[in-house]
Amino acid sequence: MDKYMDLAYKEALKAFKKNEVPVGAVIVKNNKVIAKAYNLKESKRNVTKHAEMIAIEKASKKLKTWHLDGCDIYITLEPCDMCLSALTQARINNIYYSTKSNFNNNVSRETLIKIENNESTELLQKFFKNKRK
Amino acid sequence: MDKYMDLAYKEALKAFKKNEVPVGAVIVKNNKVIAKAYNLKESKRNVTKHAEMIAIEKASKKLKTWHLDGCDIYITLEPCDMCLSALTQARINNIYYSTKSNFNNNVSRETLIKIENNESTELLQKFFKNKRK
Repeated sequence: MDKYMDLAYKEALKAFKKNEVPVGAVIVKNNKVIAKAYNLKESKRNVTKHAEMIAIEKASKKLKTWHLDGCDIYITLEPCDMCLSALTQARINNIYYSTKSNFNNNVSRETLIKIENNESTELLQKFFKNKRK
Repeated sequence: MDKYMDLAYKEALKAFKKNEVPVGAVIVKNNKVIAKAYNLKESKRNVTKHAEMIAIEKASKKLKTWHLDGCDIYITLEPCDMCLSALTQARINNIYYSTKSNFNNNVSRETLIKIENNESTELLQKFFKNKRK
């Protein structure tokens, strides 16, 4: 188990050398590493390029599916809400992390603004109705 | 305002035609559309390819920064936690959506497993100590 966290740490070191917040992630399936990644938010100028997100992308490509059940992830830092939600949606099995974060809960629905648009709702309903057929 | 939601709806239609859950997103800055995107989760086989995430990527590329302050987003469906967290981290101004979702709160920290690894913590501390210098 800890050997994978060590691998994740080595990824974090790569981020550190690039002057990125040093976070690394490794995805493992059946005792095989299928994806390694490190934070590239500044280099890629994109908030979505956290280590976990890149690891999800690589693992999905390798497995040719967005279902990552049967996979575990090892992360050097507790995931933010974005990454945790993505990992949950990918149905990843276990999420291991090493450093506790105090800045991970950033989801607030209070500021969302609703606009009436029945078309969007009807389109979704039509989609799921077709799916059920 | 509604004209942007209409544009987002047109994006959702593109997703529908690809047999994707029909969700579209448009990012606007100074009354100019800077990014349009639709859900491509199944086509890209990647849970992170929601309309909002692709729109963030496009907008970040266009503006050459991950800071999307001054930008608003129009989404045909209430964002999931992943997208909401990404939008918050990108510091987007206003989030407008049209259809309420019942499946957006999927973040739970209860299942996270902590592994001791002081190296990761020390690396992060070193990074932020250097930054403060």
